[in-house]
Amino acid sequence: MKILLSVPNISEGRNLEVVEQVAEVVRQTPGVKLIDYSSDADHNRSVLTYLGEPEAVLAASKAMARKAFELIDMSRHQGSHPRLGAVDVAPFIPVRNVEVAEAVEISRRFGRFVGELGVPVYYYRESATRPERYDLPVIRKGQYEALPEKLKDLAAWQPDEGPAEFNPTAGAMVTGCRFPLIAFNVNLRTTDLAIAKRIAEGVRFKNGGYRHVQAMGVELKEQGMVQVSMNLTNYVETPLPRVLETVRMEAARHGVPVAGTEIIGSIPLGAVEEIIKHYVQAHDFTLNQILETALLE
Amino acid sequence: MKILLSVPNISEGRNLEVVEQVAEVVRQTPGVKLIDYSSDADHNRSVLTYLGEPEAVLAASKAMARKAFELIDMSRHQGSHPRLGAVDVAPFIPVRNVEVAEAVEISRRFGRFVGELGVPVYYYRESATRPERYDLPVIRKGQYEALPEKLKDLAAWQPDEGPAEFNPTAGAMVTGCRFPLIAFNVNLRTTDLAIAKRIAEGVRFKNGGYRHVQAMGVELKEQGMVQVSMNLTNYVETPLPRVLETVRMEAARHGVPVAGTEIIGSIPLGAVEEIIKHYVQAHDFTLNQILETALLE
Repeated sequence: MKILLSVPNISEGRNLEVVEQVAEVVRQTPGVKLIDYSSDADHNRSVLTYLGEPEAVLAASKAMARKAFELIDMSRHQGSHPRLGAVDVAPFIPVRNVEVAEAVEISRRFGRFVGELGVPVYYYRESATRPERYDLPVIRKGQYEALPEKLKDLAAWQPDEGPAEFNPTAGAMVTGCRFPLIAFNVNLRTTDLAIAKRIAEGVRFKNGGYRHVQAMGVELKEQGMVQVSMNLTNYVETPLPRVLETVRMEAARHGVPVAGTEIIGSIPLGAVEEIIKHYVQAHDFTLNQILETALLE
Repeated sequence: MKILLSVPNISEGRNLEVVEQVAEVVRQTPGVKLIDYSSDADHNRSVLTYLGEPEAVLAASKAMARKAFELIDMSRHQGSHPRLGAVDVAPFIPVRNVEVAEAVEISRRFGRFVGELGVPVYYYRESATRPERYDLPVIRKGQYEALPEKLKDLAAWQPDEGPAEFNPTAGAMVTGCRFPLIAFNVNLRTTDLAIAKRIAEGVRFKNGGYRHVQAMGVELKEQGMVQVSMNLTNYVETPLPRVLETVRMEAARHGVPVAGTEIIGSIPLGAVEEIIKHYVQAHDFTLNQILETALLE
């Protein structure tokens, strides 16, 4: 069984009736499981999380986008989170037996569909058509309000799909395949924030660390600890155990032990495989050995 | 979603057409997934592995037993593995969201069904009705051939279900709920078998070690290593990481490192949770955080 995940962000987080209607079309799509949806009134934004076979997830995403464009009017939208459009960003994330190339193809088919609805579409991450469109914040710069101006500068802002024309109610959309991200925090038994910051610099790509690690040092005042707060953006090439043990090694240099860690949100079973192989030293272990995976075939 | 596993052993491992017919009735049971079946000609015995919701697994087991009793004649059976009957032993193993009490109840309903077919039934492990019937080898002592004699000694051998009469074609059956067992081997970078044996004695229940560990030292001649070969019979009360780290600690006393480990066959996701919590120190981690589990709801 192939499993693709999508976590689109839509620009409505106050009128929960609208959010429910969008969630409902996802729920009604055969073969798709809506795991969660949550709204933030301050951001005026909601995130839907659903998964299933790639074709089913694509069908759900099309229905989701159609409904969101019908119900959300960006010309009246206000909220504290940066956004470009009614369906602001729709990432497709390979979870199980899905190659990046296949997820890219799904995102492109979704992009063409949305483009044909008259909405400018930009591809990002693994689906990006040019390097400067890899990162979401770069594409989203100036937000919805800057779209009319940007769409005049076609050399830079020609959409990947859809018309190069401002769509006042839908705005624009970003979509693409991105790798599953693991939000991973390591808590250290010290109150010395400088130690957490130094370790964060040591493990993150920006300062010479691991290629797929973003990290920062954070104070946990109430707990009397500090934290190395990380995003692991590719758990295959930069596995969690290697990062954790590097943090532990650097902390030990200061005589500071690891008090505990937090895995925030979800991880795919693929990341679990690496944890078992590393720590249990079970070199030949495969996920098929986990009994429950038989039900995912 | 509740998941119950059953791995019945039937006394036919040479006539694969018979085995296939028994497997087929399991495969045809709605809601049941036949993961595997394998036959051993020398043992003249086959193991079927299937799982699903408890009621579906019970239905499959009833169909399996009826078919096995129809096709297998114990009065003509020969093989090197100890056995009591055509369906020799049918364990029910709680995998996910199933309490031991519920699996015991399923095994009892299965036992009553088989008893009503005229086959003497003994409950073992968590379903045992008396302490001396806890272990399979004790019940199976003397095998099929001793059944006529044993059934005369009703004080000791009154069946838990079915008639206290010898059934020449079906023999007798053992069933019950047992905890998932993890076959776990730790390879050590030494050729000194005495070290593996000493460590095995240190961790196993028999000699004062962990309650749910069976262990022995084994030579791996070809690899030039020795192995602590273990069965972990309750991964909740005696978790794998604690056992592995104890083996590592004892090996280190002799200056011997762990070269690797082997997890043989299947483990339930519940055992994975303990591995992540222990090694990643992710104290609050739950299995719901694994994306794919959403599809098991």
